[in-house]
Amino acid sequence: MNTFGQIFRLTTFGESHGQAIGGIIDGCPAGIKLDFEAIQFELNRRKPGQSKITTQRKESDCVEFLSGILEGVTTGAPIGFMIQNKNQKPKDYEHISDAFRPSHADYTYFKKYGLRDFRGGGRSSARETANWVVGGAVAKQILKAVQINAFVSSVGDLFLEKPYQSLDFSKIESNIVRCPDEQVAKKMIEKIKEIRKAGDTIGGTVTCVVQNVPTALGEPVFDKLHARLGQAMLSINTAKGFEFGSGFCGAKMKGSEHNDLFNPDGTTKTNLSGGIQGGISNGMDIYFRVAFKPVSTLMQNQQTINTQREVVEIQGKGRHDPCVVPRAVPIVEAMTAMVLADFVFLNRMFTN
Amino acid sequence: MNTFGQIFRLTTFGESHGQAIGGIIDGCPAGIKLDFEAIQFELNRRKPGQSKITTQRKESDCVEFLSGILEGVTTGAPIGFMIQNKNQKPKDYEHISDAFRPSHADYTYFKKYGLRDFRGGGRSSARETANWVVGGAVAKQILKAVQINAFVSSVGDLFLEKPYQSLDFSKIESNIVRCPDEQVAKKMIEKIKEIRKAGDTIGGTVTCVVQNVPTALGEPVFDKLHARLGQAMLSINTAKGFEFGSGFCGAKMKGSEHNDLFNPDGTTKTNLSGGIQGGISNGMDIYFRVAFKPVSTLMQNQQTINTQREVVEIQGKGRHDPCVVPRAVPIVEAMTAMVLADFVFLNRMFTN
Amino acid sequence: MNTFGQIFRLTTFGESHGQAIGGIIDGCPAGIKLDFEAIQFELNRRKPGQSKITTQRKESDCVEFLSGILEGVTTGAPIGFMIQNKNQKPKDYEHISDAFRPSHADYTYFKKYGLRDFRGGGRSSARETANWVVGGAVAKQILKAVQINAFVSSVGDLFLEKPYQSLDFSKIESNIVRCPDEQVAKKMIEKIKEIRKAGDTIGGTVTCVVQNVPTALGEPVFDKLHARLGQAMLSINTAKGFEFGSGFCGAKMKGSEHNDLFNPDGTTKTNLSGGIQGGISNGMDIYFRVAFKPVSTLMQNQQTINTQREVVEIQGKGRHDPCVVPRAVPIVEAMTAMVLADFVFLNRMFTN
Amino acid sequence: MNTFGQIFRLTTFGESHGQAIGGIIDGCPAGIKLDFEAIQFELNRRKPGQSKITTQRKESDCVEFLSGILEGVTTGAPIGFMIQNKNQKPKDYEHISDAFRPSHADYTYFKKYGLRDFRGGGRSSARETANWVVGGAVAKQILKAVQINAFVSSVGDLFLEKPYQSLDFSKIESNIVRCPDEQVAKKMIEKIKEIRKAGDTIGGTVTCVVQNVPTALGEPVFDKLHARLGQAMLSINTAKGFEFGSGFCGAKMKGSEHNDLFNPDGTTKTNLSGGIQGGISNGMDIYFRVAFKPVSTLMQNQQTINTQREVVEIQGKGRHDPCVVPRAVPIVEAMTAMVLADFVFLNRMFTN
Repeated sequence: MNTFGQIFRLTTFGESHGQAIGGIIDGCPAGIKLDFEAIQFELNRRKPGQSKITTQRKESDCVEFLSGILEGVTTGAPIGFMIQNKNQKPKDYEHISDAFRPSHADYTYFKKYGLRDFRGGGRSSARETANWVVGGAVAKQILKAVQINAFVSSVGDLFLEKPYQSLDFSKIESNIVRCPDEQVAKKMIEKIKEIRKAGDTIGGTVTCVVQNVPTALGEPVFDKLHARLGQAMLSINTAKGFEFGSGFCGAKMKGSEHNDLFNPDGTTKTNLSGGIQGGISNGMDIYFRVAFKPVSTLMQNQQTINTQREVVEIQGKGRHDPCVVPRAVPIVEAMTAMVLADFVFLNRMFTN
Repeated sequence: MNTFGQIFRLTTFGESHGQAIGGIIDGCPAGIKLDFEAIQFELNRRKPGQSKITTQRKESDCVEFLSGILEGVTTGAPIGFMIQNKNQKPKDYEHISDAFRPSHADYTYFKKYGLRDFRGGGRSSARETANWVVGGAVAKQILKAVQINAFVSSVGDLFLEKPYQSLDFSKIESNIVRCPDEQVAKKMIEKIKEIRKAGDTIGGTVTCVVQNVPTALGEPVFDKLHARLGQAMLSINTAKGFEFGSGFCGAKMKGSEHNDLFNPDGTTKTNLSGGIQGGISNGMDIYFRVAFKPVSTLMQNQQTINTQREVVEIQGKGRHDPCVVPRAVPIVEAMTAMVLADFVFLNRMFTN
Repeated sequence: MNTFGQIFRLTTFGESHGQAIGGIIDGCPAGIKLDFEAIQFELNRRKPGQSKITTQRKESDCVEFLSGILEGVTTGAPIGFMIQNKNQKPKDYEHISDAFRPSHADYTYFKKYGLRDFRGGGRSSARETANWVVGGAVAKQILKAVQINAFVSSVGDLFLEKPYQSLDFSKIESNIVRCPDEQVAKKMIEKIKEIRKAGDTIGGTVTCVVQNVPTALGEPVFDKLHARLGQAMLSINTAKGFEFGSGFCGAKMKGSEHNDLFNPDGTTKTNLSGGIQGGISNGMDIYFRVAFKPVSTLMQNQQTINTQREVVEIQGKGRHDPCVVPRAVPIVEAMTAMVLADFVFLNRMFTN
Repeated sequence: MNTFGQIFRLTTFGESHGQAIGGIIDGCPAGIKLDFEAIQFELNRRKPGQSKITTQRKESDCVEFLSGILEGVTTGAPIGFMIQNKNQKPKDYEHISDAFRPSHADYTYFKKYGLRDFRGGGRSSARETANWVVGGAVAKQILKAVQINAFVSSVGDLFLEKPYQSLDFSKIESNIVRCPDEQVAKKMIEKIKEIRKAGDTIGGTVTCVVQNVPTALGEPVFDKLHARLGQAMLSINTAKGFEFGSGFCGAKMKGSEHNDLFNPDGTTKTNLSGGIQGGISNGMDIYFRVAFKPVSTLMQNQQTINTQREVVEIQGKGRHDPCVVPRAVPIVEAMTAMVLADFVFLNRMFTN
């Protein structure tokens, strides 16, 4: 259950405030020369403390590879890796060791496992996603020709309204909120700063565009490409929704408006399908959007209950993100890359 | 890849215009007295030709069970079943045997498999979902105490605006569009009739509410309950989006508005979480919404290309749904039931 | 749990005395022109009533394909199939409907499922293996260049002592016991006839030789080629042991005797490894041997107990094999073919 | 492919002469107080350098647990662990970096992956089994009531002839060869010392007896308990054969001799079935035997070929076991425990 993927598989372990997190990448072919800087670059995009609008927990998030690589080249053996937790402060959580934080997983984990790993949410912490970024960074190196670009498309009610075709993806990393439109980015950053000052948090959305996708990725029926992408995105902490192509807007349209007519070369004149038809990629851009709710940890006191079902008050303290979407960007890309790599291998199997 | 679920597993086969479709339900416990009428009732809700606003293909959709049942009771052996295709008309498709219908899976299947099973979309046809309804109907009988109610919440731009708590789910089956609000239902039916008259199609959404859910269903990290529900819903033909709880609206909110505060008994005062926290059910109602695009087959002529990349015109003929959502309702419920049954078994394993 | 294989997957259903048995072959590539006579030929080799030394139950064992095939060619969709039970006689079992037959699965199924599907062993019957033969016959057509030959290598204490290299595999089907040495075959047939006359049964072994195997099949560590072959063979009803290459004899040898030295072309001078090193095929012949115990159903009365734990006597009646090995030959080949096909696809995935 | 088990799952990484090996145990229930000394005790039984008849490589084989445990108790989260390689000497292998050692996996890995991880066999090394022992030691703590005892039953042509019922399992650890009969143990040890002196190696067998097994473990058809045990045992390096209950001897017997008649309490008078009927445990002792070939690395020079297909001579040097069976004993037990734990959870799911 801690394994993602069918052929290109990531299995992970680790809690937010334990000694280390890590994972095993299985199914990576032999002979791939890994670019370790590129992997670390992705981790740096996700890491806490990277800017004023993220949590101030300081983690270097250095990944150590333990196996599966010989002289920088994959050997076909499973790739074990580990990220030490350097700045864990389980003590920050002692004051809530018995309380269920509202809208966190504390209560449901307690119901499921009969005990409380109070240290920063334990396994339910988004710290786990650092493992995913490692898996995704390796997957990206398998998918050399494919371009995966995610960016922040809304913070609260501030939306980036432009169609993705008019955006310059090279600008995504130019600002700390990871929105490729500088004007909108500025407003989003202001918004998040205000929210942080108020001890509050705010939701947002991330849009992802995948270009230069091979055709024929995805398996019919239950492993449709978009269904696996959806599962992947909804696995990200605080995700509440997923739509691809025309998405929820498509549900308001007529077929005569929505159909993507073909050009003679097999491309389509429009792309409301979002690059996927019948669960299989058609070679057009894949694009989708993911909704993230506001982070549940507030820098405000909240009433709640504890394991004895007593009403208690928890204080707003610790180190947390006021808005999750800037750091969600590399995670969305990583999960996308792992899904695509998996389907590349699944598809390759059945070529005669 | 034609298997759904991990423990309660449905594996399926069959094409729209082949001899039969069917499947194997694996992982159903022994000793369950099956209500065969209830199973057939679900199939009847999905079957074509059931009303004026669905396709006029006539299929009795009678399911035959071939194994796994002794004197009406499950034996623990796999349950094989079959639904004969009675009204298949592959000839209806001969005129397009070589053409790729716009926004259908014709092109992508051709790219993937190197051949065209032109007969009604073959495996990509929504006829496959009859198998899912059988699996779901069995799953529902395992989940006796749980209530799963799906309904049409929008057709085009006609929305059922009321909160689900104010609806009377017993009214869902009282009208052919499966909207529990009679006024809105009437308008939706009119809308679909108009659309059909114009030879066009229209999208819509289905909302599903699950009540009396046990706590602790769902597995952390990659098998979060909502991620699996999302994958299941996005597997349904023409689905374009999925959101649960506060969904895309939640992405606009602040944490101080969004957090669900606890009552002393462990229930929550609000339920923006949609009954799932950290991927695990908390016992509150689970609710989610699925977006369906308009059906791609129009009763209008359309220009397209064929396997030789020639531009051709395809005629609008055959028997098709002008709007998929009324028949999607039982499919949404079926997939929900299978996901929940699977998690019930997964959860049971680890109780000490 | 009723699914075999990871990529080339067979999922099955059906009981010995139910209406039909059948299965779904998933993961078969598109574009394979199936030879249906070859499939039926394999079924005929396994079917009951084929000779004087097998059970006299008469089944035509005609397989009907229901999907996944268009004009004789696989489409990439799952291949559903069904074999009707024509000569089921559940009444033959009424006299034991409550009794546990010694060394059958009656008692363990009752403990597991809490009920008794008494009709000929239900799911535990070797009738299920007809499904495997269908799966294997399709797999053989994928593995065109590979030759898989199984034969009876012992019946009771009658052994075929010659090394397989000296045998003429084309003689296997020339006699009803399926031993390629005519002299030994004659003795085996006599032996089985005697045993049958005495109302008794007898065990035996089947040897299988696979030639022209591609190198690099098998996955290290847990999916070693021989480990999967072993699991496959031990899945066959009444199997008690499996050895490959030097097998149990190899455990008596010294390394200096056992090592297979290389020829310059990568072949080896000896082949005690049995064509597999480190779980991966090296291109040499794969050979292995499977032990089958005597069938538990005797034509003699036996004392036993029933569900109420009363001592009862069961009569020796019904239609059963005096020795399972002649009919096990095609089953061993079928399982071998499915394992190899699965590994061919698994291996193909990771070629750069 | 580096994952073992379906519910109780071990995923592993690591090479013989890399930095570390390790794994992730997934599916371990919450609330189990782990006995870490017992885990280390099992590792010590397997570790190199433990006696004069094993390899002299010195590894402390200390396991570090990185996650899934809070105050000594499992939390339900995946248990990550790591064993540092302290005494790796990749230089020992430089002289063969280009050569294929006879009967090793060098050649097949090269064919599969296109490259050579020459350092001690890389992933194909038995060092990997230390990970399995950790997984098995945790599984044993889940299976508290079950007793699993493996022992050496032969070395070369020296056999322990006594039936297991007459053995005192508490004597297994009293000698370095792990044979519970002191007289036979002495001879075995002498034999191995002689073999070592000659620079040779020798094969042997390990027998395993499992007592106090719950009934109803094992899943019919493809996941038969003995088929999974067989796969598990055949995964162990150098394994060549597996038999359970009457095994290959059973293939010589008549049904009237082989059937296990019932006592009124459901136990059987004999146990040729080996505690498993129809793939499901019947509560009697499970016993089986595994054949191991002689280790392929000799302290003798051998002719072989290299990657350029040139004939070369490799020298006999490095640190290796003259006979693998004494150290295989804890590995056999570990794999048995993991298989049983997996089936305990699989079985629990379907209790109504």
